[in-house]
Amino acid sequence: MLPDNVRIVDNPSVALRAFLDGRKYTKVALVVDENTERDCYPLVKGALPSHVLVKIQSGEENKNLSTCTDIWRALTDEAFDRKALVVNLGGGVIGDMGGFCAATYKRGIDFVNLPTTLLSQVDASVGGKLGIDFEGFKNHIGVFQKPQAVLISSEFLKTLPFREIRSGYAEILKHALIADASHWEELKSLDLKTADWATVVEHSVAIKSKVVTSDPTEKGLRKILNFGHTIGHAIETFYLDSPDGRLLHGEAIAAGMICESYLSVKKLGLAEEVLEDIVSEITEAYGLHEIPEADFEAIADNTLQDKKNEGGVVMAALLETLGKATFDVALDRAEILDALRYYAGLPVKR
Amino acid sequence: MLPDNVRIVDNPSVALRAFLDGRKYTKVALVVDENTERDCYPLVKGALPSHVLVKIQSGEENKNLSTCTDIWRALTDEAFDRKALVVNLGGGVIGDMGGFCAATYKRGIDFVNLPTTLLSQVDASVGGKLGIDFEGFKNHIGVFQKPQAVLISSEFLKTLPFREIRSGYAEILKHALIADASHWEELKSLDLKTADWATVVEHSVAIKSKVVTSDPTEKGLRKILNFGHTIGHAIETFYLDSPDGRLLHGEAIAAGMICESYLSVKKLGLAEEVLEDIVSEITEAYGLHEIPEADFEAIADNTLQDKKNEGGVVMAALLETLGKATFDVALDRAEILDALRYYAGLPVKR
Repeated sequence: MLPDNVRIVDNPSVALRAFLDGRKYTKVALVVDENTERDCYPLVKGALPSHVLVKIQSGEENKNLSTCTDIWRALTDEAFDRKALVVNLGGGVIGDMGGFCAATYKRGIDFVNLPTTLLSQVDASVGGKLGIDFEGFKNHIGVFQKPQAVLISSEFLKTLPFREIRSGYAEILKHALIADASHWEELKSLDLKTADWATVVEHSVAIKSKVVTSDPTEKGLRKILNFGHTIGHAIETFYLDSPDGRLLHGEAIAAGMICESYLSVKKLGLAEEVLEDIVSEITEAYGLHEIPEADFEAIADNTLQDKKNEGGVVMAALLETLGKATFDVALDRAEILDALRYYAGLPVKR
Repeated sequence: MLPDNVRIVDNPSVALRAFLDGRKYTKVALVVDENTERDCYPLVKGALPSHVLVKIQSGEENKNLSTCTDIWRALTDEAFDRKALVVNLGGGVIGDMGGFCAATYKRGIDFVNLPTTLLSQVDASVGGKLGIDFEGFKNHIGVFQKPQAVLISSEFLKTLPFREIRSGYAEILKHALIADASHWEELKSLDLKTADWATVVEHSVAIKSKVVTSDPTEKGLRKILNFGHTIGHAIETFYLDSPDGRLLHGEAIAAGMICESYLSVKKLGLAEEVLEDIVSEITEAYGLHEIPEADFEAIADNTLQDKKNEGGVVMAALLETLGKATFDVALDRAEILDALRYYAGLPVKR
């Protein structure tokens, strides 16, 4: 079951018009970046009343307070009041940041997210997590707040580069691994180039929704969604400033899932053959990212900033079996280094 | 009745220790400014476990994103996790801003407010309004979030200058005017220099709490708390950059209440003698602030940014009778200018 506010739609323009019909917003802003302005704006423009276009620069490096200031200023300059609406048209950066700006503008106005990447459709569309990065730490400043609507359309995916599709796919794999073994088996035969994404996304969002519903503010079970992210985020952050080695979110999470599956074997007795299956599927899709031993210590340092930690102890979500995860598993530094060493030592397929 | 999380306490140190007892916070930060560090920190220091002192500069002009960045950075540098606590020791600026920083740090950690001014004790202690100013607009960026506890002690008031006490008293008058006529009558015989503030604050907070409980996110009735603030905030904002003419919040609200009581007569038929009574009480306590006619237009412009406006129309809360207010009364520019002219034309008492 999808959450109340999330809909998979064929035509985003029709869906947006239906949402706006009968609602009386005093003003509407549309937040875009240069990519979504070019590729996605034409798909929804017709549905919007007269609106303010707020254009920001794409990229995780712009998901910060400075860009928020630009968005808040645009709303302020246009005298947006508390009955105004913000529509976020873009991937995770725009949804998280545009949502955060709306949720904090005059202590919160309505916003609608139109996720345009596979990653944001399966991940950011559920759970109401909003926020921005702060001095190198991902999603460090933010709030929990649900959009009035999330309209998911695979029309938006048609203009995405394959690498972006593959990045989003990592979260789909994750949802299957932590909560739906049979979906994992189905995904193994999926061809990323020809997949029917509307169906796959709907299934994956439903898995996430079930987890989130049971724990809206991340006190417990929801933490299993962090599988792959303790080490994955640390890797992503480490390579954020590296021009060549830069990883997309899903690519880092793919590496993180391998590391944390390895630790699941060590600490929770996950079956070796499940680890092999995971490594095989993930490396087939993503290959292996080169992580030199010289970087291990700094990556381990980064895991200390994870939001799920408690009292300076790194807390991870690990797999008990295929399709079942557990949370608040304490990891020590040696284990994190060991997992990175395991990953770096995997044989490269030719 | 006070809200669940608010307590009037004799000894703030004992109360804080009682709060912390049995709760397991991984770290504690105490946010102070140079005044509360000197005057109030000694009153609670003994109750705190080992803690991080986050010192900011006092003053509304520092209630901004730049100071938030300092606070977020301090928490980040000390690796605060989601089970850490922020204790805000100060007036409205510290409570609103320290609360906002806590409510957005890693999407929200616990915080406790120890309001040290009369204004913050009666006003900011109830309602969960948090936020900061943005490019000249008061509380423009923020969220609603209740502190885990608000501990109110009149011990803190003993070090306050009289002008600060008087500023806070404006909100006490306001609560009486909008919702408790008999409290208004009691206040008329109050001597601000010798008042038993614990009792007065408890009564006033209970009035506010009753209003807020019926409307936690300000969709309706809660808007009556804005009485005096539509014009009062506009006056306060206008004089923010004026070194001599600078007004404390309550002083501006006192002027705003006179202006809006005048409009209550014009628009809602409030009795003339009630207006006279209000003018007499307020001018006795506050005198009259000189507002030259040349400033009227700019002040009227400022009212357009009020958060309670809708679709570019200024919405105010006005009095129907003594002790009863109504909200969403549209004010046009001419009316606002007329009210400012009324205020500026009041005879100065000698």
